[in-house]
Amino acid sequence: MKRLLQALGGDAVWPPPIWLMRQAGRYLPEYRQLRAETPDFVSFCLDPKRAADATLQPIRRFGMDGAILFSDILILPWALGRDLTFTEGHGPRLTPLRAVDEVLALDKSRFLDRVAPVLETIGLIRSELAQKHPETALIGFVGAPFTVACYMIEGGGSKEFAETRRMAAASPGTFDQLIAVLTETSIDYLSAQIAAGAEAVMLFDSWAGLLSPTGFERHVIGPAARIAAAIGQRHPGVPMIGFPRLAGTMIAAYAEQAGVGTVGMDTAADPRVVRRLVPEATGLQGNLDPFALLQGGEVMEREARAILDAMNNRPFVFNLGHGVMPPTPPAHVAALVDLVRGR
Amino acid sequence: MKRLLQALGGDAVWPPPIWLMRQAGRYLPEYRQLRAETPDFVSFCLDPKRAADATLQPIRRFGMDGAILFSDILILPWALGRDLTFTEGHGPRLTPLRAVDEVLALDKSRFLDRVAPVLETIGLIRSELAQKHPETALIGFVGAPFTVACYMIEGGGSKEFAETRRMAAASPGTFDQLIAVLTETSIDYLSAQIAAGAEAVMLFDSWAGLLSPTGFERHVIGPAARIAAAIGQRHPGVPMIGFPRLAGTMIAAYAEQAGVGTVGMDTAADPRVVRRLVPEATGLQGNLDPFALLQGGEVMEREARAILDAMNNRPFVFNLGHGVMPPTPPAHVAALVDLVRGR
Repeated sequence: MKRLLQALGGDAVWPPPIWLMRQAGRYLPEYRQLRAETPDFVSFCLDPKRAADATLQPIRRFGMDGAILFSDILILPWALGRDLTFTEGHGPRLTPLRAVDEVLALDKSRFLDRVAPVLETIGLIRSELAQKHPETALIGFVGAPFTVACYMIEGGGSKEFAETRRMAAASPGTFDQLIAVLTETSIDYLSAQIAAGAEAVMLFDSWAGLLSPTGFERHVIGPAARIAAAIGQRHPGVPMIGFPRLAGTMIAAYAEQAGVGTVGMDTAADPRVVRRLVPEATGLQGNLDPFALLQGGEVMEREARAILDAMNNRPFVFNLGHGVMPPTPPAHVAALVDLVRGR
Repeated sequence: MKRLLQALGGDAVWPPPIWLMRQAGRYLPEYRQLRAETPDFVSFCLDPKRAADATLQPIRRFGMDGAILFSDILILPWALGRDLTFTEGHGPRLTPLRAVDEVLALDKSRFLDRVAPVLETIGLIRSELAQKHPETALIGFVGAPFTVACYMIEGGGSKEFAETRRMAAASPGTFDQLIAVLTETSIDYLSAQIAAGAEAVMLFDSWAGLLSPTGFERHVIGPAARIAAAIGQRHPGVPMIGFPRLAGTMIAAYAEQAGVGTVGMDTAADPRVVRRLVPEATGLQGNLDPFALLQGGEVMEREARAILDAMNNRPFVFNLGHGVMPPTPPAHVAALVDLVRGR
């Protein structure tokens, strides 16, 4: 069995498997070259050959234990009929969603047709992995409902996502309906990714930490639990990673109630404390500071070793606490892989 | 003894004392009127009569247990000779500090003269409290060195404070020197505030959660411990609150090592988990979601009661998890005070 799947299945594989969030991305010159061929980012994500190529670039360079599907969490709202554009330096723009009739108008009937290129991408990746990188497992993903709702309501990125949090408090009916649609379609989308060849799946909840504990239970843990239960039923044995970024102390409730086998730790998570808060059977993933990777050398080594020490004898996957930053030298990533593998 | 000082001294006073971060601010019409008289924000902070008036406005309305000095965490770098301006809608602007000679040029000799108006403000506040609100205690504050360094290096607010984190990793010498100057002057500034009449002091570390656990130990816990030790020595019995915002699970190490008597919890902190992680003797403060206060009614009531239930029989101060938001109706604040006091 592939080492990543062993670890995600609950074995304390050592040295731990490693992959990095945003390991396919702008820090790689070959990615920048590929990306330049298709300036429109949505078209790039929906081009099976190029998206598969982007996914595989870091595997060819570093032989990671996991390949993360190259796509974007906002492909789901796009597939549900919302406008989506990406502009250089400004990130994503969507038409802000504010009213219940816009939730009711989300086009659930066609969304699986619209993500067909993503499913085709998965097939291409699996095929190259089988031929050239048989030890690497493919991870599919969706943005978790709360985080996707943040972008849909706000209409893009935001420092505080004030409109989303206001709506969650002031219009719980509308907000819950949006979360319900995203939960249901996330299940179908992840299920289709698994059917197409994803060997594990991940829920990215980048803005989970904006909520209070009661909001977190309702809008983060609830949907994660529904998704994990449905995927567990439809695809027994396919592991799921949940990443409630910035959850802080709320990671305890998430690990106990969300039903995901592995929980991702962000940069601020203290692995020694998380170990105490999270049930023994739950796997952990994370959480090197991307700034330590950017810096490389002794800083990176010291921080990486502290994480390895804290995670010894535990089902664990080495990763960053957030994505690889664009100015990161690829040589630092190679050095990190060697360090974690003890070479 | 004033109830707030009892709670900060380690007694489980019940119902708990209450004050709110940014309780003096734009949500109050009388504040907006006062503020309009002095468009320049730095001048406003350094006008003893107006700053005292702003501090006292919420006390006159709501009879809070704590009055927080009306000032700004960036008055310290301003007093050290850095440029500082505030522009409507864009927050603070400072000349970015990037080089070690700029750290060496910080003018430690004159800074206490430059903050003299703040100390005068404290005297005016204490005098009105003594006459009209004898139950209300005055809290002085500084921004913690890491957070103040974030603004000084970046030159203002930022989503990620990338330059600061890059410098902390790449130029630890320069960064540590800046933190050392801010630690030393924070001690003198807090000490002067106490001498002028502050009855408790608070360290605001708004961006503490950006750091990894190793960076947090070095740049957040270390300076807090040096400040707490010095204040404890110079002013025995004056309580200190530390607020390492977004610390998440790192709150455990902070409570154990920073040496502050009371730790502030942000909105994302799960009070039930924090209770388990923080030594029994340490007081806690927080952490109602400002969006729940904005919403008011049942949402606010439910969230406030959950916090009160989790904090029962513990030295505790009721507060928000972050500041009062400008659109908050003052009537919601009044209702919250009544709820916490059980009226």
